Amino acid sequence: MSPRKSVAETAATRSRIIDSALTLASTEGLEGLTIGRLATDLEMSKAGVIGHFGSKEALQLAVVAAAVEMFRLRVPARAVGARPGTERLTRAFDEWIDYMAEGEGHGGCFLSSVASEFDGRPGPVRDAVLDALASWSAYVAAELGTAVEARELPPRTDVGQLVFELNGVALAANQSIQLHRDPQAPTRARRAIARLLIAP
Amino acid sequence: MSPRKSVAETAATRSRIIDSALTLASTEGLEGLTIGRLATDLEMSKAGVIGHFGSKEALQLAVVAAAVEMFRLRVPARAVGARPGTERLTRAFDEWIDYMAEGEGHGGCFLSSVASEFDGRPGPVRDAVLDALASWSAYVAAELGTAVEARELPPRTDVGQLVFELNGVALAANQSIQLHRDPQAPTRARRAIARLLIAP
Repeated sequence: MSPRKSVAETAATRSRIIDSALTLASTEGLEGLTIGRLATDLEMSKAGVIGHFGSKEALQLAVVAAAVEMFRLRVPARAVGARPGTERLTRAFDEWIDYMAEGEGHGGCFLSSVASEFDGRPGPVRDAVLDALASWSAYVAAELGTAVEARELPPRTDVGQLVFELNGVALAANQSIQLHRDPQAPTRARRAIARLLIAP
Repeated sequence: MSPRKSVAETAATRSRIIDSALTLASTEGLEGLTIGRLATDLEMSKAGVIGHFGSKEALQLAVVAAAVEMFRLRVPARAVGARPGTERLTRAFDEWIDYMAEGEGHGGCFLSSVASEFDGRPGPVRDAVLDALASWSAYVAAELGTAVEARELPPRTDVGQLVFELNGVALAANQSIQLHRDPQAPTRARRAIARLLIAP
C-alpha cells in the first residue's frame, strides 16, 4: 500500500466515523454519543475509533464542524444566487425550513439540539456551537443591513431585534416539526418570516 | 415509628430525590441523569433511589411532572389576577421571561430542553413533554380567543399562527439567555410579544 493511499484511507475512515457519529448524535445527543456504540455500528475497535481523534471531545468538535459545513452547503450556499437583502434572506430561511422538514424524525436541526444540550456546560463544544450560531446571526444581520440600505426595510429597523425574532421563528419551526410532527409548521414559519421581512 | 410518619417520610424522600434529579437533569439532560450520580449526591444507595420509583423512566416522568407543576405555579398561576385576553397573556409571558432569566446558567427552561432532547425518541417521556407543551399552547390559544372576542385582536386573527409565533419568541429568549447570556434577551422578547399582541 502506498503512503498516499494510506492517507486517503485514513481520511475516508475519519469521514465515515464522523458521519455515523452525526447520525447517532442527532437522536441520542452529542453527550450521549458513546465510543462503544460507534465502534459497534462501524464494526471497528474502540481504540480504532478514538485513535482518529484522540478524545471524545475532539470527536464531538469534529461532528459539530461537519454539521456546520452541511448547514453552510445546504442553506446559505443555495441562497447565493438571490439578490442581497430580503430576497436572499427569504431564500435562505426557505432552504432552512426545507432542511428541517427533510430531517423530520432524524433529530431535526442538529445545531439547535446541541445548542440546547450544551447551553449549561461550558467548554470547547459549547464555544463551537456559539461560534456557529454567531456566524449565522452575523449573516442574517448583514443581509438585513443591506435591506435597510436598499429601503426594503424602514430606515429605523432594529436589526438586532429582527435577528432575534427570525431566530425564534426557526426555533419554533424546528420544535413543531420535530416534536409535534406538525405538517403546518413549514407554512406557519414561512408566513411568519414573510411578515417580518416585508416592510409594514 | 408510627406508620403515618413513615408514609410522610417516604413522600419527603421521594420529593428530595425529584428535586435533586431536576437540578441534575437541568444541566446534564434527562437522559444523562444517572441513578449512581443521584445516589452519591443524596448519600443514598442506588437501590434506595430507584426503589422509590421502580425504574429510571418512572423517575424521569416524575421529574417532568415536577417541572410542569413548577411552571404552572410560576407562570399561569401568577397571571390569574390579570384580565383575560391580551392582558393575561402579556402577564404570563412576562412571568415566563422572568423565570427563564432567573434560571440563567441553571439549564433554563427545563421543558424546552427536554423537548429538544426527546424530540427524536418515542416513548412515555416524549409523550409527557408533548402533553405539557400542548396544554400550554391550549392555554395561549384560549386567551387569544378571548382577546379576539373582546376585539383586542382583529376578528380574522389566525390563532394557531399566533400561538406558533409567540412560542418562537419564548424559544429565542431561552436560547439567548442560556446560550448567549445576552442581557438584552428579556427586553427583546417583551418587545416581540407586545408587537404580536397589539392589534395592528
